[in-house]
Amino acid sequence: MNFNGRVDEIIGRKNSMLCVGLDPVLEKLPQSVRTAAEPFFMFNKLLIDATIEFACAFKLNLAFYEAYGLEGWRALKKTFEYLPPDVIRIADAKRGDIGNTAQMYARALFDDLGADAVTLNPYMGYDSAEPFLCHEQKGAFFLCLTSNPGSKDFQHFSNREIALYEKVAITVNDWNSRDNCGLVVGATHPEELARVRSLAPALPLLIPGIGAQGGDLEASVKFGTNQQKSMALFNSSRAIIYASANADFALKAAVEAKTARDQLNSARNQ
Amino acid sequence: MNFNGRVDEIIGRKNSMLCVGLDPVLEKLPQSVRTAAEPFFMFNKLLIDATIEFACAFKLNLAFYEAYGLEGWRALKKTFEYLPPDVIRIADAKRGDIGNTAQMYARALFDDLGADAVTLNPYMGYDSAEPFLCHEQKGAFFLCLTSNPGSKDFQHFSNREIALYEKVAITVNDWNSRDNCGLVVGATHPEELARVRSLAPALPLLIPGIGAQGGDLEASVKFGTNQQKSMALFNSSRAIIYASANADFALKAAVEAKTARDQLNSARNQ
Repeated sequence: MNFNGRVDEIIGRKNSMLCVGLDPVLEKLPQSVRTAAEPFFMFNKLLIDATIEFACAFKLNLAFYEAYGLEGWRALKKTFEYLPPDVIRIADAKRGDIGNTAQMYARALFDDLGADAVTLNPYMGYDSAEPFLCHEQKGAFFLCLTSNPGSKDFQHFSNREIALYEKVAITVNDWNSRDNCGLVVGATHPEELARVRSLAPALPLLIPGIGAQGGDLEASVKFGTNQQKSMALFNSSRAIIYASANADFALKAAVEAKTARDQLNSARNQ
Repeated sequence: MNFNGRVDEIIGRKNSMLCVGLDPVLEKLPQSVRTAAEPFFMFNKLLIDATIEFACAFKLNLAFYEAYGLEGWRALKKTFEYLPPDVIRIADAKRGDIGNTAQMYARALFDDLGADAVTLNPYMGYDSAEPFLCHEQKGAFFLCLTSNPGSKDFQHFSNREIALYEKVAITVNDWNSRDNCGLVVGATHPEELARVRSLAPALPLLIPGIGAQGGDLEASVKFGTNQQKSMALFNSSRAIIYASANADFALKAAVEAKTARDQLNSARNQ
């Protein structure tokens, strides 16, 4: 089964569209974990155990690990190894480089880390994507419209007919011959989310911003899912992993994850 | 002195615009090095010693290290530590992410690795750049127009007045309030290189593609340098580091680096 089929299957089987973002920052870890031998891995492991019942995917943003050098890279690798294969394991790397270099990144993310999917930056075009896309069972989510203020600088650059983010949606939809392309679309722009969904009716969308970034969850589900009310992964990082700063953080994370999953499903069934 | 002033100063002092790209691939290393305890670091160290007389900058593309996981990251770090501070040390990472994440990448590349400059992807806009730009003595080269076939997919997306890559050049030129922004422009497009130079007259340009990618060196120097025939770094990776597949690779790399530097200077003095 190609990647996009697997997304649909896992969302159905787990009855969840929730993606938990594991983006640890040392200063924010609960005291009990911060002093452990491997604080990041310990933090992630406890969070995975607590939230896996409610999540269909986990997303690790590489920046949060690379910031800690070798130690961070080790925690990243151990966390990917720990994640079971019945969830979607996303390396949020936002890479993008020429062909021979993209091949090396694909090796790093798919082979060395063992990710099921990656996030990519589309700026350098098709040959920067192909070394990822040739892995049919692996997925690639391309940045399309992001939820940060700077998304206005270039993503809305327009030729009066379409804006760059729409061009990206159309182009990536064309690249999807192996059924393993997806798009990253911020939840803070519901109308534009609807527009992207209309341009790429079948692609999985990775939608950050439903937690700390404050997107409108109901509108995001309404406009982000496909006709069968599936094929969208809603990521929440900070609202879940920092639900408590104390030793009960994993317990509180489970409560938050369950709430988020239920809210997503309730919006889906409306 | 802010970063861009330092680029000008180093190009003048070393009388070189050559940037050597250290992008090692295990299978391509000479036998003598491949069997060493730390093959990448050994390879890089010998290449640095051999070419530093002729180079003003070294660029390490992170993909080539990340592909080898922890071992690769270690070689990357050791190479940055080995590079002396009187050359420009570039982490070719092409990162780009929202503010709090960009901050983590800045920490990884500037603090943990100790790079003087990074390459960034502009797609996510200003707040993805600011966590790098606030380091005045560090530089950020933004992808503008690249030299690969896929550059046509989005970088030439146009509103009939300007194309996206021109919009990027104009915008990054505006971001340069701290005199530490630059642009990445492929050497395979001399007319467009001239256009970028006209839009960003003072910014340093990082120009890949003069070696294995086969750009026109003379035209690139003519159109890529500023009015004082400076502020351009011409990168060559494969043509230098794989000049020989045998034990004499460092010697041959030195010859190639000297030739490239001299050709660049000769084009500059025309």
